[in-house]
Parts: sequence; C-alpha cells; structure tokens
Amino acid sequence: MEDIVVSAPGKVILHGEHAVVYGKVALASALNLRTFLRIRKKNDGKISLNLPNIDIKASWEIQNLKNSLQLPLCDPLKPNCVENEVLDQLKVIAGISPDSTQTTDLALIAFLYLMGSITVTSGDLPSIEVTVSSNLPISAGLGSSAGYSVCLAASLLQLNGFIGSQGSEDTAGWSKDDMVLINSWAFQGEKIIHGNPSGIDNSVSSYGGAIRFQSGKITPIEKMPKLRILLINTKIPRSTKTLVAGMRDLYNTLPNVMQPILDSTEAVTEKCQSVLAQLVNDGTDENYKILEKLIDINQHLLEAMGVGHPALNTIVMLTCKYGLHSKLTGAGGGGCAFTLLRPDTAEDKITNIKKELNMLGYDCWETSVGANGVSRHLDLNSTSFPSNLL
Amino acid sequence: MEDIVVSAPGKVILHGEHAVVYGKVALASALNLRTFLRIRKKNDGKISLNLPNIDIKASWEIQNLKNSLQLPLCDPLKPNCVENEVLDQLKVIAGISPDSTQTTDLALIAFLYLMGSITVTSGDLPSIEVTVSSNLPISAGLGSSAGYSVCLAASLLQLNGFIGSQGSEDTAGWSKDDMVLINSWAFQGEKIIHGNPSGIDNSVSSYGGAIRFQSGKITPIEKMPKLRILLINTKIPRSTKTLVAGMRDLYNTLPNVMQPILDSTEAVTEKCQSVLAQLVNDGTDENYKILEKLIDINQHLLEAMGVGHPALNTIVMLTCKYGLHSKLTGAGGGGCAFTLLRPDTAEDKITNIKKELNMLGYDCWETSVGANGVSRHLDLNSTSFPSNLL
Repeated sequence: MEDIVVSAPGKVILHGEHAVVYGKVALASALNLRTFLRIRKKNDGKISLNLPNIDIKASWEIQNLKNSLQLPLCDPLKPNCVENEVLDQLKVIAGISPDSTQTTDLALIAFLYLMGSITVTSGDLPSIEVTVSSNLPISAGLGSSAGYSVCLAASLLQLNGFIGSQGSEDTAGWSKDDMVLINSWAFQGEKIIHGNPSGIDNSVSSYGGAIRFQSGKITPIEKMPKLRILLINTKIPRSTKTLVAGMRDLYNTLPNVMQPILDSTEAVTEKCQSVLAQLVNDGTDENYKILEKLIDINQHLLEAMGVGHPALNTIVMLTCKYGLHSKLTGAGGGGCAFTLLRPDTAEDKITNIKKELNMLGYDCWETSVGANGVSRHLDLNSTSFPSNLL
Repeated sequence: MEDIVVSAPGKVILHGEHAVVYGKVALASALNLRTFLRIRKKNDGKISLNLPNIDIKASWEIQNLKNSLQLPLCDPLKPNCVENEVLDQLKVIAGISPDSTQTTDLALIAFLYLMGSITVTSGDLPSIEVTVSSNLPISAGLGSSAGYSVCLAASLLQLNGFIGSQGSEDTAGWSKDDMVLINSWAFQGEKIIHGNPSGIDNSVSSYGGAIRFQSGKITPIEKMPKLRILLINTKIPRSTKTLVAGMRDLYNTLPNVMQPILDSTEAVTEKCQSVLAQLVNDGTDENYKILEKLIDINQHLLEAMGVGHPALNTIVMLTCKYGLHSKLTGAGGGGCAFTLLRPDTAEDKITNIKKELNMLGYDCWETSVGANGVSRHLDLNSTSFPSNLL
C-alpha cells in the first residue's frame, strides 16, 4: 500500500472573539499553516504514533490492544461521544494518569479512540505507523489540535475506504457526505482533547475557507477569498479562561458601556463578511481599505474589552509604520495577531517587517487565510511538507 | 484705586469629545491652569493691553476711541451679540485687517468691545492698563481664549461696580446674578474670537467644577470633586475640523459599527459623572478603579473613531508602565492628553513621568480638574501668579 498523506489547515478568528461569548457572531477562517499526517503500512504487529514536533514516539502491540479493548470502540459511520469508561481504559493502555488534562496525553487517547473505531476490520487492527507534523505553533489558539484530529479522521477513514469511495484519489475526491463524516470524527477527537469544544476549529479545518459561528451554530461562508496575511505569535502565555473572566467582570461592572462595544464588534464582523464576498470578484483598493479599517476598529474594541497587551500594541504600531493593519486573533492578552497584506504588498517590505518582529522575539509567518480544507496529497515531493514527515 | 486681579481656569473634556457632535453628552471640567488678569489705574489718557505670553502690547488714546465710537457699544447689563458694523469699526481702530481670523487679532477686538460696553461712564472711558498672562498653552483646546474672556468680563464688570456690589471683595463675593452676567459677557468675547462657540469653555471657566453638555444645553454638575491630573501637551498640531470630518466619513461608511461606539462613549460619560458624585464623599480605591477603567475604554473608543495618534499611544503606554491611566482630551490626532493621579500617587513617581514625557518633547503640568471658577485675588504675593503679571 502507498502511504496516505493528508493535511489540514489551522484557523484564525478574523473578527468576533470574546463577543462570541455573548451570543454575537464570529468569523473564523482557515489558516494556511497546515498540519500534515502520513500513514505508512508496517508489518511489525504494532501501531505507532510519531509526533516529532513535540518529541513523542509511542507504539502499542496490536495483540495487547485487541486483548484489552472491545473493538470497534464505536461504529465508524456513526461518530459518537466516547464513554468515560472507554476513555479510562485507553488511558491505562497509553500509560497516562486518569486525571491528566495535558493536551499531548489526550492527543494519544484521541488517536487510539479513532483507530479503535475506524480502522477495525473483523475485530483486527492494521499495523501502521502514523506521523503527524505541523507548521502551526501549538497551544497558540490556532487550532493545531483540530488540524491533528481532522488529519487523523480523514486519513483513517481513507485507509479503510469509508471515504473517497468513488475511486478518485485527489483532494477533490471526497464527497459532501465524506466531508461530514471527516468533520464529525474530528469533532470526537476534539472532544477528547478539549472536553467541550465549540466545533469551530474542526469545521474550519475540515471545510477550509471561512465559517460564521453564532450561539453554537456553524455556517460555512460561500464566498471567501484567499487573503495574504502575516501571522505573528508573541509567544506571551495567556489564559483564555482568565481573559474571558476579566471581560465578564468588566461587562458586569459596566454593562451599558460594554454592551454597545459588543454590538459594534458584531457590526464589524458582519461588514467584514460582506466585504469579503465582494472581494471575491472585486479586489479593489476600496474593499481592502474597509477591511483594514475594520481590523483597526476591532483591535481597539478588543483593547476596550481589556484583552489587549503591550506586545500586541507594539505589533500594531510596527506594522502601521509600514502602512499595514493588524489585530489580535483569539483570546488576546498576548498570543497571536495577524496583519493583512494586500495582493501587491512588496516582498522586501514583508521581509523587513518579519526581521523587526523576529528581533522582538516574535515568531512570524507569511501565509494566507481562506485556505483549502483537509486535503489528500499524492505528490510527496511538494516543498511545503515539513521535512520531518518525509 | 487698588489693582483688580482676577483669574479663571482652563478646561479639559473628561469624556464625550467627538460623540458630542452626534448629540451625545460630554463632560467638561475646569482645569487649574489659570489665566490671570490685572487692571491697573493709569493717568496717561490711554487704555493699554499687555499680553506678555504672546508679545503683544497695544494702547489706544481714549480721546480717539471716544471720537470714533458711539459709546457705550452695548448696555453693560444686557450682554449682546456685536453687530458686524461695530466689529468693523473696532478692527479699523485696532489696525487689523477686516478679514483677519487670527485669534490674537480678534482677542484685541474682544477687549475693545467689552471695554467700550462695560466701562463707559457718562460717555467716558477710564485710563487703565490691562495685563493678561496665562499658565495655559494657547490653541491647545484647553480653553485659553475663554479664560481670557472670562477674566476680561469679571474684571471690567468689577471695575465699574456692576458686580460684587454687596461690598464683599473676596472670591465668593459674586452673587449668582453676578456670575450669570460674567458668563454672558465672556460668551460675547468668545463669539468675537471664535465666531460660533459652544459656550462650554466660558461656562466651565466661569463656574469651575464641571459641566454636562448635550445638544447645545449646558448643565453645571453639582457634585464634582477636585482630581489630581497630569496634563500633557504633545504640541503635535492638529485640525479639529479635519478630525471631525474624518470621523463623519467613518460614521457614514460604517454606521452600524460607529453608532454603538458613540452609545458606549455616552455610557462612559454617564458612568463617570455618577462615580465623580460618589467620589465627593467616598474617595475609595474602588471608585478610582472605575474612573481609570473608563479612561482606558474611552481612549480605545476614540482610537476606534480614528482620532488617536502615535504620540497619544506613547503617553498611554508610558503612564501605564507607572500604573496610571491616560486619555486624549479634545479633538485628538495629537493635541493634549491627561493622566489621572490618585490622591496618594507619590511625587517622585510623578517627577519621573514628567521627566520621561519632557524627553519626548511634550509639555507637562501637574495640576487638577474640578478647579474653582473665576476668582478675584486680593493677596498678590501668592506664588501661583505668573511672574510677568507682578
């Protein structure tokens, strides 16, 4: 069997972070920093998982797994919440403390659960080696775990022929139903890793482009152009929970001040979506100017919500010096920001900005949003693959 | 006759600048950077005006004034708009081009108009020398012209006994009616200098404390504590007209985004007023914390309106480093900012901040808001008098 190689994008929130907690719409878009996964057939009676980015190599004897588990763990065509009992069994097998909430630990459990549900044939498991490598920083609010779950779901479903059954093997070979199945399994993975995920990250990573999210409802956006951006990671650690709680306090103290700030944020999101739809056919300066203005305004609104940070302010001022517009993305208080690049933004300008940002200690990627969703790759010589995957 | 010496405060807008253009409430407060005026009796048959801050020394032969003007120009007890014809006559007398819109030129006209209306006795004018000196920077949006007009009105009305008639000569000696008369005459001065003033500046300068302003209606605030502030002048020139027009464009382009920003601004102003009222009796940390939060939020809302400036951002970040909170005041786009100081903010901290701000080229004053309005001074040895007045 040939290797199966898939990739899935990360995500950035374009607008609506924090406001989404108060029932306002948020707009999330696929980030073309991708997670790659390769399945290679083995004959060593083992299932192996390599996560070179975080120095994890794990492998399990198939016989042991078969002895300890009642396979399949779940009907592969009916992705379902895992029961706690099964999770506890998997933790024992993986040698993980039952109380562990470490993402890396839980990533192993998600792998075992999807394996034990999707790849079971007549009670048996295939001997394979799975390697996952990502261009995304982890724990940066960029959906790296969703990219992992989506890649796992797509590749394991593909391995056992649950998707791509029309015989087409290229990226576009997955039908609408296939995509629903991938996304549903990815959501199960996310639940194992995060407990109570919104479903935004796996949906964006599966479908690509952009989605609207409001009060638990996810709607893919029909018209989403690809936009060049700089993604910047300040690497300043922040707690989403603390930031959300801080905004909640502020909201409770000053409801008449904060409610219209949330209303304004939603209007920014709605306007952005409509300008993006226009931009598909009309990439004029005028549309870019509005996108830039919305970025500026939302950054200030987020600062008014108390989720800014001097490092984010520095990024805004530095890129402003070059005529570019930036905002935080995600929880704020550090974390990541993005800078919108116009189609004609010169490479040497970008190089200079990246240099300045690097000197401040920030990581920086020239990439795009509105990226393709989960994709299968047949040409493994592509230069965009992480070297540790090849 | 003894010299008459009066002083009047400047003003800062605490909250509501720009939003006020859209019918929202604004809160303006008396700034204890004062304008001082001295009237000294002479016997040289002349009326003289010295404005040492701007190197102006002017004097007029009383006989010439009597020959060219029909005195009094206006009933001293019925302050009234000046007629264009009279203004034109005064411009000829002052040797000023009929088209001049220079504030300094128009300040001379205001002086002559108030003199020629208030100090006329049996068709005659007194020989006096008037010296005006201010601690306020001019053309910085801090109401320096209003301070000038208020001082002129109060001192000239006092000179001819139209106010303070109860025989009391101290600051508190002016009755409510006296204050109305001072403020009305000051407003006439402002009209000559500015054409179409809102009346905010002269009202704050006359009454002190703070006022609410909304849709042309001015309401003095009953409970206004004195608050320590740093006032900072970036000296970056800006055009109020351009900034207001820029916000208007933004409002027209993104009404659904900008309207709630204005709503939020008004809620900030209302909350500030209610916290200030509490602060009169309860200067607790909790109340100061809310004032600081409101300053932060409004600064970000003003930035969202597009009236920020990197220099203002620098001031916010610099004072934040010291745990203090700042916002622009007035039109923005440069101009002035203020930093709230708590009652217990240490002097050495303030000294350090001032040093840092001075090194950036900004002027900086430790002063207060909620200052006393127009006052008469009997003790001329007070150290707060500008030296060029004594």
